[in-house]
This record gives sequence, structure tokens and C-alpha cells, in this order.
Amino acid sequence: MEETLELARSRHADHPQLPLALRLIENTGVRTRHIVQPIEETLKHPGFETRNKIYEAEAKARVPAVVQRALDDAELLTSDIDVIIYVSCTGFMMPSLTAWLINEMDFSSNTRQIPIAQLGCAAGGAAINRAHDFCMAYPDGNVLIVACEFCSLCYQPTDIGVGSLLSNGLFGDGIAAAVVRGSGGTGVKLERNGSYLIPKTEDWISYDVRATGFHFLLDKRVPGTMEPLAPALHELAGAHGWDASDLDFYIIHAGGPRILDDLSKFLQVDPHAFRFSRATLTEYGNIASAVVLDALRRLFDEGGEEHQARGLLAGFGPGITAEMSVGRWQIDEAA
Amino acid sequence: MEETLELARSRHADHPQLPLALRLIENTGVRTRHIVQPIEETLKHPGFETRNKIYEAEAKARVPAVVQRALDDAELLTSDIDVIIYVSCTGFMMPSLTAWLINEMDFSSNTRQIPIAQLGCAAGGAAINRAHDFCMAYPDGNVLIVACEFCSLCYQPTDIGVGSLLSNGLFGDGIAAAVVRGSGGTGVKLERNGSYLIPKTEDWISYDVRATGFHFLLDKRVPGTMEPLAPALHELAGAHGWDASDLDFYIIHAGGPRILDDLSKFLQVDPHAFRFSRATLTEYGNIASAVVLDALRRLFDEGGEEHQARGLLAGFGPGITAEMSVGRWQIDEAA
Repeated sequence: MEETLELARSRHADHPQLPLALRLIENTGVRTRHIVQPIEETLKHPGFETRNKIYEAEAKARVPAVVQRALDDAELLTSDIDVIIYVSCTGFMMPSLTAWLINEMDFSSNTRQIPIAQLGCAAGGAAINRAHDFCMAYPDGNVLIVACEFCSLCYQPTDIGVGSLLSNGLFGDGIAAAVVRGSGGTGVKLERNGSYLIPKTEDWISYDVRATGFHFLLDKRVPGTMEPLAPALHELAGAHGWDASDLDFYIIHAGGPRILDDLSKFLQVDPHAFRFSRATLTEYGNIASAVVLDALRRLFDEGGEEHQARGLLAGFGPGITAEMSVGRWQIDEAA
Repeated sequence: MEETLELARSRHADHPQLPLALRLIENTGVRTRHIVQPIEETLKHPGFETRNKIYEAEAKARVPAVVQRALDDAELLTSDIDVIIYVSCTGFMMPSLTAWLINEMDFSSNTRQIPIAQLGCAAGGAAINRAHDFCMAYPDGNVLIVACEFCSLCYQPTDIGVGSLLSNGLFGDGIAAAVVRGSGGTGVKLERNGSYLIPKTEDWISYDVRATGFHFLLDKRVPGTMEPLAPALHELAGAHGWDASDLDFYIIHAGGPRILDDLSKFLQVDPHAFRFSRATLTEYGNIASAVVLDALRRLFDEGGEEHQARGLLAGFGPGITAEMSVGRWQIDEAA
């Protein structure tokens, strides 16, 4: 945080709205972030082509170990995986990393690939939901989810609006992986999922695609979107016979501090319930689609929940889209 | 075809391999293609940013009518659709066109969005397979598939290798839409799907992502991939108790003429069985993920098949990935 504020001060000394930008950055509550390159390299823009090559090289260098840990935690082998859902909006490859991963880590040649690049921060929730759907269709199936986000590779030095300065102080890099098993294992047993698009907000979070790469555009109305999204969370939980205000655990996309504050208010949920998401934001920044997976990891690290505890997961992103699910904590009896 | 050959001759008069390129283009059998812009505009490169804006504008201008026709053919309303799978590898938007479509055509705010940009020509098959999976999970669900490919917007004037010249004469623009209904309707009742990745071929079909946009790279070994893929088709059909060489209809991605010739040979299937795919290739060129949907449309136009006729669908693309399915022709008894 200190380094970010100092950089903002030194690079934008003449910016008329610098005090506002600094205040917004301080308010994110982000204390530390990880970025794939040294800060001096990150602040340069070597061109979209080079940036994308760095994305590919760093993803190949870092993703396999994360995937292996997820497989080990799920007590599965690569040969047990039926689908790889790979979500990432900060680099573009065709074929996506899935093809390389299948070859590199010796997944079955029959592994299905679902690469998603265009759901942004909502893609973590979307990946969980599509994995849930797949396991409903194939109860013996297992799905590997990988979220790889190098937001620092979308830093655009020429974007100096207040929204951009805030984003520069908010987003971080991260890779997360998780396995959704058709049966067995300890973790969240997904029971229902749904999606909600806030009407007429498709230009509130978007990429301007240019020769210099992806330019992130963030409308100032975005932090206020929990008010229209809270009813959608209530509706999904209600369809399951549950009250979204009264669940045992919450795994929520921490897009920024106000997202969590507002959701606490509009769902009437104690802020402590969002401690996993808050910790991800504080320690890593907004790591886009990887936030929900990292927040979930923190729930595991805390020792998990009681068997049958009821919870809600939600990712938010461009659209504006919410990808939501409800489920129960399950403790594997065989373990 | 004549215009393409003439353009190749005039623009690459000094190219040492021009005769080979002309021969390869002639061999594609592509007689006509549609492109979204006038040829003079297509041959210019106004920059990645402008190209992508053209992609967005043309998609918004053309997709809704195609979607409406698919809904009408399926006798469904927008409110009946649970998921939109939007596949397109020739332009990049975030959010993808799905968010705009939901707003513009008044789909439900609960419509799930699955945008896929990184499966290239295999994405048509992948969309069908993911739609099938979704309807297995939700038997009352309905899935809208949209394939929007403006390959002409990926024309790169500076790419003058023989493979690029061939691609310039092969790919066309097209939009296709289809509905996979959970139940009812006339068409292919999907029964089983699968995916196959040919090991260690991930760099045979790929995009080089540059400031000038997506540069399509096509390895000369690609046309020979039906030999390793035919066994995968046999395996999928075999798992269903069927013989891939002895089915009633075939809807195959027509990547190029040799794909169909070779598949005919390696599957021991009469070339006439591939007449739908061949017609798409001849009249539209390789329209990427839209090929399989257009070939299927031609089967409908021919009057369809006998009730319970057995068929195979397959898309091929980067990875190298095959997305395959088998199913029976179903005639809606209520209709």
C-alpha cells in the first residue's frame, strides 16, 4: 500500500485529482499485493505482444504447481479429471492454456476444455457453477477449475482517469485452482446455482480493446451494485428454501471494500461473515476470478465448517453479472 | 473464387510460391464467400482497435435477427432460454456480446452466459456439447447457441507465408444460431458427447496475438489430422454401441477439402454423407465455429432424416481438439 501510494504521488504529481485518487486507494484496504514481474518492469508497457508473451510464460511457469496442489488436496490424479475450466481475462491465447496443460501434466486426451476469457471477475463464480452443472449431468465426473489472473499485465500507463488510478491500486495477480468432485471429498457440496445480470449495465465494467491491449474501464456506479444484486442472492437462496441473510458461511467476490460493506448492509449479514473475502482483498488485492477460490481456501484453512453448514458463494463481474451458488459444507466420512 | 485468385495474383505477383498458393486456394473448392465489409475495406488494416470496433458493430447489427430465427424455428421465446453459449474467435469483447444480447432482446436477467473465444473452429462442436451437458443437468432447460465469426476481420496483409495466403482464400464470415431444447422439437436428439485432444499439437493451429490483432498460424500438418481423429470418432460411437462408419448422417466441421476427403477415407464413409459440410465449404468457405451449425441447417433444409436415424456431429479446431457427439434424429410428434 505504501509503495502504491508513493508511486501514485510521484508519477501523477500534477494530477488535479491526485488527492481523491490517493484517498480511494487508501480506502481499498489493500495492504499487500503480488505481481508477476518486478514493479519497474510492470510500470513499463513493452507492447501488447510482449505483454501477452509474458502472460503465457508466467502462466506456464506457475499454473502446474497450483493445479497439482488442488489435485492433491482433492486426492485425485490427472486421469480422474473430466473437464478443465480455465478462466482468465488478463491474457489471451488460442488455444487457451488448457491444451498445453493437458499435454504438460498428462491429463487424459478426452479431457473437455472450457476456456472462458470474457466474464472477468465473475468467472470464478461461473467456473464453480459450470462445474456444478457438469457434475449434475455426470455424477461421477470431476472438474478442475483454474483461475489465472495477472492483472498487472493490463496496467496502462496512459490511462490516468481517477478510475484507472484506483484500479492500479486495487488489482493484484493470483492463480488459484480447485477441484469440484462429483462425489466424496470435504468441502462445499454445491446444491443450486444461478446467474443474474443487472439490466442495462453492460458498459459499466468493460475492456476497451486496443493495439496496446486491454484497457480496463470501471464506471463509478459499480461500487453501488450490491443494492440491486442482494435481491438476486435472496431469490436464489429462497428458491432453495434458505434465507440469504441467515447462512453459516459466505464466499463472496471482494471487488473492492464497498462491495463487502454494502453486501453486509443489504443482506443484513455480520461483516465477520465476509472475513475470508476481506482477507483476500487485504493481502492480495482484487485478484479477479481467483478471489472466490482464494476466499474459499481461507475457509478450509480455518478448519472448515460443521457438517451440513449452509453457505453461499458469489462472483461479480462485467455484465454486470452475478454468478451465485448455495451449498452445504460436507465432511468426507471416509477421511 | 475468381476474385480471390485474381487478388492473390495481383497482390503477390512477386511471391516465389504464388503458383503453389494459387493451387492450394483452387483446391479448397470454395466458390463463394460472404464478408462483412466491402473487399476494399477488408484488405486494409485499420488497426486492431478499429477492427474490433467493426466486429462489435457488425455483430450487434446482425446477430439478433439470426437469434430470432433460431428461436422461431425452435418455437421458443427469449424467456424460455436458460443459457446463451456464444462462441466467436474473431473479435474480443468484455463483457462478451451475451450481456448486450440479454438486454437488447429482453432475455431473462437469470440467463446464464457461456462466452467462449479460445476454441476456434472446434467451438461449434463444443457449444453443442456444453448445451447437451446442460440439458442433461436440467432436463427442462433450453440453450441458445450463437456462433459469430468474422474471419475477414483477422486478415493480416503482412502475413504472406503460403499458409496465410491459403487461409485468406479459405475462411469466410458467418453467423449461426441454434437452440438445444431439453425436450421436444424436431432435430438431433443428442445422446452422448466427448472431446479428444491430439497429444502435442497445441501449436499446430494458433493465434499469434500482436498489436495488429490475431495472426492466424496454420501448421501444414493440420490437413493430415483426420487419421488420428478418426479413431476418436470410432471410440465415441463405439461407447454408444454404434459404428462410426455406418451411421445415417454426418455433420462435420469442414475445415478444408482434405478434412472431408480424409475423413471419408479413414471412417470408410461415402463422401455423399458429407454433402452438408461440403456445401457449407463451397458456398461460404470455412466459417469457423459456424460450419457445423450451417451444415446442420442444410440437413434440415433437405427435409431431415427418418425418425430415430443415427448421426454424428464433430467440430475440429485448435488444441488440436475434436468436439464430438452422437444422437438420433427426432421428429416432434406434436408438430
